[in-house]
Amino acid sequence: MTDLATLRRMSTPDLLVLAAELRAELVDKVRHAGGHLGPNLGAVELTIALHRVFRSPADVLLFDTGHQAYVHKLLTGRGLDDLRQAGGTSGYPSRTESPHDVIENSHASTALSYADGLAKSFAVTGSYDRRVVAVIGDGALTGGMAWEALNNLGAAPSRPVVVVLNDNGRSYAPTVGGLAEHLAALRSGSSGANLFTALGFSYVGPVDGHDVVALEQAFRSAAALGRPVVVHCRTEKGKGYPPAEEDEADRMHAVGPATSAGGRSWTSVFADSIVAIGEERPDVVCLTAAMALPAGLGGFAARFPARTFDVGIAEQHAVTSAAGLAMGGLHPVVAIYATFLSRAFDQVLMDVALHRLGVTFVLDRAGVTGPDGASHHGMWDASVLPVVPGLRLAAPRDPASLRELLREAVSVQDAPTVLRYPKASAGPDIPAVRRADGYDVLREEPGAAVLLVAVGPLAGACLAAADELARHDVPVTVVDPQWTMPLHPALLRLAAGYPLVLAVEDTTATGALGARLAQALAATGERTCVATFALPAGFLPHASREEILRAHGLDGNGIAGTVLKRLARLKAVVE
Amino acid sequence: MTDLATLRRMSTPDLLVLAAELRAELVDKVRHAGGHLGPNLGAVELTIALHRVFRSPADVLLFDTGHQAYVHKLLTGRGLDDLRQAGGTSGYPSRTESPHDVIENSHASTALSYADGLAKSFAVTGSYDRRVVAVIGDGALTGGMAWEALNNLGAAPSRPVVVVLNDNGRSYAPTVGGLAEHLAALRSGSSGANLFTALGFSYVGPVDGHDVVALEQAFRSAAALGRPVVVHCRTEKGKGYPPAEEDEADRMHAVGPATSAGGRSWTSVFADSIVAIGEERPDVVCLTAAMALPAGLGGFAARFPARTFDVGIAEQHAVTSAAGLAMGGLHPVVAIYATFLSRAFDQVLMDVALHRLGVTFVLDRAGVTGPDGASHHGMWDASVLPVVPGLRLAAPRDPASLRELLREAVSVQDAPTVLRYPKASAGPDIPAVRRADGYDVLREEPGAAVLLVAVGPLAGACLAAADELARHDVPVTVVDPQWTMPLHPALLRLAAGYPLVLAVEDTTATGALGARLAQALAATGERTCVATFALPAGFLPHASREEILRAHGLDGNGIAGTVLKRLARLKAVVE
Repeated sequence: MTDLATLRRMSTPDLLVLAAELRAELVDKVRHAGGHLGPNLGAVELTIALHRVFRSPADVLLFDTGHQAYVHKLLTGRGLDDLRQAGGTSGYPSRTESPHDVIENSHASTALSYADGLAKSFAVTGSYDRRVVAVIGDGALTGGMAWEALNNLGAAPSRPVVVVLNDNGRSYAPTVGGLAEHLAALRSGSSGANLFTALGFSYVGPVDGHDVVALEQAFRSAAALGRPVVVHCRTEKGKGYPPAEEDEADRMHAVGPATSAGGRSWTSVFADSIVAIGEERPDVVCLTAAMALPAGLGGFAARFPARTFDVGIAEQHAVTSAAGLAMGGLHPVVAIYATFLSRAFDQVLMDVALHRLGVTFVLDRAGVTGPDGASHHGMWDASVLPVVPGLRLAAPRDPASLRELLREAVSVQDAPTVLRYPKASAGPDIPAVRRADGYDVLREEPGAAVLLVAVGPLAGACLAAADELARHDVPVTVVDPQWTMPLHPALLRLAAGYPLVLAVEDTTATGALGARLAQALAATGERTCVATFALPAGFLPHASREEILRAHGLDGNGIAGTVLKRLARLKAVVE
Repeated sequence: MTDLATLRRMSTPDLLVLAAELRAELVDKVRHAGGHLGPNLGAVELTIALHRVFRSPADVLLFDTGHQAYVHKLLTGRGLDDLRQAGGTSGYPSRTESPHDVIENSHASTALSYADGLAKSFAVTGSYDRRVVAVIGDGALTGGMAWEALNNLGAAPSRPVVVVLNDNGRSYAPTVGGLAEHLAALRSGSSGANLFTALGFSYVGPVDGHDVVALEQAFRSAAALGRPVVVHCRTEKGKGYPPAEEDEADRMHAVGPATSAGGRSWTSVFADSIVAIGEERPDVVCLTAAMALPAGLGGFAARFPARTFDVGIAEQHAVTSAAGLAMGGLHPVVAIYATFLSRAFDQVLMDVALHRLGVTFVLDRAGVTGPDGASHHGMWDASVLPVVPGLRLAAPRDPASLRELLREAVSVQDAPTVLRYPKASAGPDIPAVRRADGYDVLREEPGAAVLLVAVGPLAGACLAAADELARHDVPVTVVDPQWTMPLHPALLRLAAGYPLVLAVEDTTATGALGARLAQALAATGERTCVATFALPAGFLPHASREEILRAHGLDGNGIAGTVLKRLARLKAVVE
């Protein structure tokens, strides 16, 4: 729309026109492609002012979480026409797109830590002309990492980091806790105390985050201080687009693409099921880290407000306060995105499992997530959580099994239980042809030499593969283990009877079910060939869920093709 | 020494006598058995006052980190004679020892989150007569979890949690950052602002933490408020024992047992080596989360103070600020206890690996640690970190290989590298009989049908096992893979040639090298039997490192015995 040199020469009236044009572009393109709308509408003037005062990329601009960086993308020469599409502009900063992008990670509350490290590196290397600016929302400030960084930044007067607090009073949901109340007091000028100055920062503000002249002045004064400083900007999520401004739930935090897959989502099946359980079980309570609605807790929160706890963007606290709730005799259900549970691995291990507490984790966005890209794919939990002693892990294959497994999970009172499902349609129920102790048989054919262990939502793809293999006269057995952790002895015995076993999983292969099957069978000296059929050990770029699964052979065709190739190789080895 | 009912009836003069007796008991027993001395000497009066004002276990007393709970143990009927010995009193709270113990986890900064959960559970169940008290040090308050919890606690006026801030100005090392300076200002009365009241808490203090009458009065007033409150207690680590009071380094944070194994430690080999590297490489910087001395950074910090960063008890920030340092062109080395890296799994994955940054992690206390018990064993890192794309992981077998691997690690500029070693003597160098691409051969015998893959410090035990197996006429090959991640193709090819392969590892078996070997070989249809020989999937109690390794068959005898059994079983399968 404009280049940075031109931007820096613009008059104030021209800047107002530019801001209006940027908003129009955001609304037009994001409504079409899907993506984060509210956060970007709130950051228009702020981003313009930043690029006028600071000289990116010599000065480093860090956008925490990154979903408010669309304006930055537009101002640094990128378009939003192909936003979040395979091969198109990422919905987050991306270093392959531009030297102006630094952090590619969408997990919140990291920017201040990067800033601290960069400022230290500039001090060590004597790069005193480079400045570090971190833009962070009030919501992300509730995350513990941000506190750890504030503690380090504030005490280093010789390292002049500029923290731009983009305070719109919201995480995804409204920001919760003592911090939110303190920021409200600072915004209104009614607070004598100031958290930031108490920690050693200078404080500039509050500034009207939609007044580009005031913002520019504030940033210039902040930079001139030459020491750590917080610039407190009051912004409105969704600013300038009435449907977003009037959206009470989340100010159009994110909007779907114009065309959408449809079908009932896993999230909504969970949402209904947890309300039903809540009616029967007064001891069941639910926790969310600022994501009640997208994680399916809207109904539960409305029905049982006193049993629903939003702890803010604070996954560690979500898990350990759940441990405390369990110690108090309740059964907590922590509804969280799979990728964000990585933040609380230690808490699941030490605070829940070591204490043998019954806490249920419901992981939404598990497996391939799609257009949100590398840091949103929930492809780590099923590989990492199996090391937690006593933990039980399941992936439902259909709505009926989600309901059933959820009831089993909340009945376990002495260990963590985990359910995982993707951001996708849950599809129709897939009835078992036979239920055994340890697995459901989804398909049985006489003479089968191939066992497909279909984990969770890939059951449908495995059955499609079985249909295709039948056309090649290759009979297969398809089973769903439901609980993949612990490994059921019956599943092991079953697998030991097949020359070829393929575990088909929506996760990274390392440490997943196939790995544990192979390990267990190898230790007994069984001569079964176990192949793990899952995602590669790498970070996957954004594209639709279907595109990514297909690209990695995790659809019916891909699975059938792999089975045929494996069989051929196995025959070659045997002969 | 006394029971709680008697304690509550004691006169002030009697309490002073009791405090002196408790100190004498601590000094006597802890110096003999080894354990945490300074923190407990500082908490004598505080613990007495807590037990007089609150009624444990109906009121819940939570000790953050837990190494300051010895006085609590003595007052609730436990002795310290067999402290930290196998089968004896744990060095941390332990629920099997006493109903007065709640948190068993030694990882810092969790207590406030448990407190929040417990207070919520009491609200949900209407248990309004039960009170929640959390004792937390100023050091632990620099951890992000504590901030997340403060944010939740302060904003809940109806849930009366009492936070007892045990402020001795220290973590292990002196507490760093803006918080420490703010607390100092509060202690001296020179601060107008107050972080805690800004977050919604009431504030009582500062109180002399060695005046039992003042403490009791403060706790009673705090409890009477019926809302969240911070009681700020000024204490002295090591109080009342001159050698501890005068110990500038760490106030006798922990003392070793009267008799000690001796021999040069892995830590000291690293300590010397990193100084040598620092001399040659001006881009190498070191980070610690409040543990510079025990993690071996004392020499580096003294030689290169401007290139050493103590970030406080803040593992997440340590990792992501290291990412920032790497973005700035430096090579950061994060020296950290293995078990504490679990706190920063997400940061290693997203902030370092996704951004392809060269950051080296040196994990001390990896594997079986010993008398510190379940939450100090570093038995998770080698099972969890292999899911991180691009990460390289190595375990040195001797001082020479630690020096060599460290140089290799700091030369990798586009991916995280990890070295791990235990709290133990590094022993003598173990020369390779032959070096191959992908592994060192430590022993080769003609006709060997057994391959021992000796990981890191278990090389010595594997060679001892080989000696014993030779006496049974069972020839074996012993190799050291050094880098266990990624799996070297040459190691795979070697393993495929042996009917029996045992990976011998000082970690939990799930996801470890043996598992990855089994998975890789199983996928190719190779008929090798791969057994992982490691720690069981469980939490291990405290005992000496040698006792625990022996109990799990990870010494020469145990390994030889397992090989013989496996061979017998394999022959039975084949015949």
